[in-house]
Amino acid sequence: MKAFVMREIGQVGFMDKPVPKPGPNDAVIKTTRALICTSDSHTVHGGIGPRENLTLGHEAVGVVHEIGSAVEVFKPGDRVVVGAITPDWGDPAAQGGHASQSGAPLGGWTFSNTKDGIFAEYFHVNDADANLARIPDEVPDDMAVYCCDMLSTGLMGAEHGNIPIGGTVAVLAQGPVGLMATAGARLRGAGLIIGIESVPDRQKLSQTYGADEIADFSKEDEVEPVLELTDGDGVDTAIEALGADVTFQAAIKITKPGGISNAGTSTRR
Amino acid sequence: MKAFVMREIGQVGFMDKPVPKPGPNDAVIKTTRALICTSDSHTVHGGIGPRENLTLGHEAVGVVHEIGSAVEVFKPGDRVVVGAITPDWGDPAAQGGHASQSGAPLGGWTFSNTKDGIFAEYFHVNDADANLARIPDEVPDDMAVYCCDMLSTGLMGAEHGNIPIGGTVAVLAQGPVGLMATAGARLRGAGLIIGIESVPDRQKLSQTYGADEIADFSKEDEVEPVLELTDGDGVDTAIEALGADVTFQAAIKITKPGGISNAGTSTRR
Amino acid sequence: MKAFVMREIGQVGFMDKPVPKPGPNDAVIKTTRALICTSDSHTVHGGIGPRENLTLGHEAVGVVHEIGSAVEVFKPGDRVVVGAITPDWGDPAAQGGHASQSGAPLGGWTFSNTKDGIFAEYFHVNDADANLARIPDEVPDDMAVYCCDMLSTGLMGAEHGNIPIGGTVAVLAQGPVGLMATAGARLRGAGLIIGIESVPDRQKLSQTYGADEIADFSKEDEVEPVLELTDGDGVDTAIEALGADVTFQAAIKITKPGGISNAGTSTRR
Amino acid sequence: MKAFVMREIGQVGFMDKPVPKPGPNDAVIKTTRALICTSDSHTVHGGIGPRENLTLGHEAVGVVHEIGSAVEVFKPGDRVVVGAITPDWGDPAAQGGHASQSGAPLGGWTFSNTKDGIFAEYFHVNDADANLARIPDEVPDDMAVYCCDMLSTGLMGAEHGNIPIGGTVAVLAQGPVGLMATAGARLRGAGLIIGIESVPDRQKLSQTYGADEIADFSKEDEVEPVLELTDGDGVDTAIEALGADVTFQAAIKITKPGGISNAGTSTRR
Repeated sequence: MKAFVMREIGQVGFMDKPVPKPGPNDAVIKTTRALICTSDSHTVHGGIGPRENLTLGHEAVGVVHEIGSAVEVFKPGDRVVVGAITPDWGDPAAQGGHASQSGAPLGGWTFSNTKDGIFAEYFHVNDADANLARIPDEVPDDMAVYCCDMLSTGLMGAEHGNIPIGGTVAVLAQGPVGLMATAGARLRGAGLIIGIESVPDRQKLSQTYGADEIADFSKEDEVEPVLELTDGDGVDTAIEALGADVTFQAAIKITKPGGISNAGTSTRR
Repeated sequence: MKAFVMREIGQVGFMDKPVPKPGPNDAVIKTTRALICTSDSHTVHGGIGPRENLTLGHEAVGVVHEIGSAVEVFKPGDRVVVGAITPDWGDPAAQGGHASQSGAPLGGWTFSNTKDGIFAEYFHVNDADANLARIPDEVPDDMAVYCCDMLSTGLMGAEHGNIPIGGTVAVLAQGPVGLMATAGARLRGAGLIIGIESVPDRQKLSQTYGADEIADFSKEDEVEPVLELTDGDGVDTAIEALGADVTFQAAIKITKPGGISNAGTSTRR
Repeated sequence: MKAFVMREIGQVGFMDKPVPKPGPNDAVIKTTRALICTSDSHTVHGGIGPRENLTLGHEAVGVVHEIGSAVEVFKPGDRVVVGAITPDWGDPAAQGGHASQSGAPLGGWTFSNTKDGIFAEYFHVNDADANLARIPDEVPDDMAVYCCDMLSTGLMGAEHGNIPIGGTVAVLAQGPVGLMATAGARLRGAGLIIGIESVPDRQKLSQTYGADEIADFSKEDEVEPVLELTDGDGVDTAIEALGADVTFQAAIKITKPGGISNAGTSTRR
Repeated sequence: MKAFVMREIGQVGFMDKPVPKPGPNDAVIKTTRALICTSDSHTVHGGIGPRENLTLGHEAVGVVHEIGSAVEVFKPGDRVVVGAITPDWGDPAAQGGHASQSGAPLGGWTFSNTKDGIFAEYFHVNDADANLARIPDEVPDDMAVYCCDMLSTGLMGAEHGNIPIGGTVAVLAQGPVGLMATAGARLRGAGLIIGIESVPDRQKLSQTYGADEIADFSKEDEVEPVLELTDGDGVDTAIEALGADVTFQAAIKITKPGGISNAGTSTRR
């Protein structure tokens, strides 16, 4: 099969690889749609260290091609979405409620990190019964593929942010994850959502997805306008969706005492 | 001043009472709008034991008439909403995060319980800086008065229910608090809201406020339709908004394993 | 192999059964020590409905006899303790942090409930990598076997009770689980532990395991002495370790407003 | 009365000040014992900016000298301990469970910060009913004074660290707060406590208060020995008790995935 790989730091290309085979708990998926994440670009530029001929990508939907002997919930032919994070759910960290950390810090992230990713005609999913989800008939692949990472990461940021109904929220950066955090804050019943972004097109998208106000940190410090929009109080919830030290620090500065500064994501998107 | 009181169990009427005077931390409010709660009716019928010439009511908005020497945040003339629950915020239970329990179980409920309520031309509020909220100019008294109890109790039920975005919710009973819990579930991003109610007018209101489906427990057991609507799983969150033992038991039966059955209120409304 | 079974409600006895075989994720354990739980007695008397030739017991330690092809953490010869609850960790309820509810309410309880238990020469464990724990060399089987249920259930009751350092705790009933909740409260830094029990031998054991005071509910209502010992306040944490409606109600009555009434267990032990 | 003040940055000395008078909710305390905190030294050296003739100190016990008209729980002559943090419990941040942040970030810290501290013959306490605690007869002033900050801050670090019974804990720095966090971890039922400290006397004290192992970060990186002592896993709970960026970073490195890195304190002690 064809796979799009990172040959080494800074070098990508296509190569032929054998179709993977499932172990007892695994599934092999025939890819139908996949998305590029900025993390792929980071990886290629050496962000997680050297890799050799590693298939890239971690956001894909597809059709179950083959299953292992112990897989019970899914069967060949099922149309499925695959989470970008595919934990080992029996690991002690997962048992304690921290599935993304199974095995190691961020150990639940395996695709294009510790094993081949999904930019290939077929790809392998561990613990298939726990890491796949069936796609309802009325949802096309083109939509479902956004659930792998952008939607799930952004909405989780909003859920973890513990936004009060009518509360004030700032989302720092309006890339794909930030935009979905903005949409999530709207779904959570926020009363005021401030999208922090300097790129004009993203500012427009931010308003489409629910931002009431935009703060442009290229023109001014982002702290000032947020305090101004909240009568000097700061927001109830700040969602960091960029992944830089300076944004985390800004998130803390714009959050009111007793509010929540959390991180929707940990890599630039 | 005129006050509407419970003379004794089963007996109500108007009587004259002196306008209350504030202690150092208190405010006296001139009533502009007030609402009746089913709890008032319970109280008159003996639900909390005997009372003598107790002014009824716990939901009111008004204008600050007089303040105590230590009140700093509010001043005479401020238009304010007063919570139905007026805790002593320095009490150990309140310090521990359970303000409604300050001093005693449900000790934060003082109006028409341990002191005169708000069905009078003027009424007294303890700990005014903490227990009043200013009404924005654009919000009329007629709307603000719903914040005292119905909205705050119902929305809190939805917030405490920890509804996942897209999650399934059942609200048991669609009285004022249940309707606001339904509205709250909608604001929280629920994917399916089931209003459980037998009164036709309330069923209609339930749909107005956000219910996707209605289950009529007068025609059938409420457990069956809820399980049917959720593929046999039960809901993520069940909000009890009636206050009867049997409704609490139903709430537990219709909640999926690991879901949340909580109580939006503890008296029939 | 020999197994001790419940033939039908009210009938027990020995019978021959084949040694179980592991699926890919399973282990078969050679039993070395096992304990009887009051739940076994309940089960035999029909507490969970009819069963036919079901091997009893859910508390055992042993030696790994055979493993499935996907088991990685354990190997034949390992000396292991097996939890009384053996969840499917990939189930949605377990993913959400409620492993005991995997698959169904209390679905994590499989031994002598939905499959054969451990009163046999060999027994089968699903999801072995997640549901076994290695026994350190210095811990004999006779001690380790108490970890399967009594210790883990009782200590979890104390952990979930959120006891403040120096806080007041009442443990309702001093059977094996209650005694371990008492020991757990001591380990948690409680300042006053009240063991509630009427059987003299259990009262003595309660003091051995850490109770400062004993309240005998056969001589008096248990509410009075607890309030007396806490200056009328009630305790910070009440741990229900019996499993009767009346004990749950007492637990709530003796807990201070804002305190925690939790349940260490739901069946008499 | 005599007071020990910070005249300006870098300058301290005694001066005469009038005995403070209580407002309606306040108390004036006659000081009987007080302790120096490293924070006092920070303050004098400019750590919180310029101050003029500000009385220093925030850890004191004493006798109630005079009370305001609305104080109900305490009366002149009561022997009391005063928390280093004296919040306004009715402030929105306090209502939301973050009393230390009342009014502003760390706004609950008023002594020798936003008003005169306790190094004086008498000192003023706001919200006396909520911010004082009676000292039991059997506890001498010399012991009670340690509750103002060292004990309460250190023990709270251990409580917030959510240590599992038998869990592994590292406490970074063994000053007064770190030592009390070590004692707290012992009271919480930790199985292994690692005290991280380079000063030999503090290493000895650390073992006195409960540390099982000592890691000396002056001789080696503190990360290595902690990983070694925990089979490469890292600890369940790391308690930062120093207040430096580098210690926070170390705390995260030595915590296992899914564990808790918290801060017992935010200033070097």
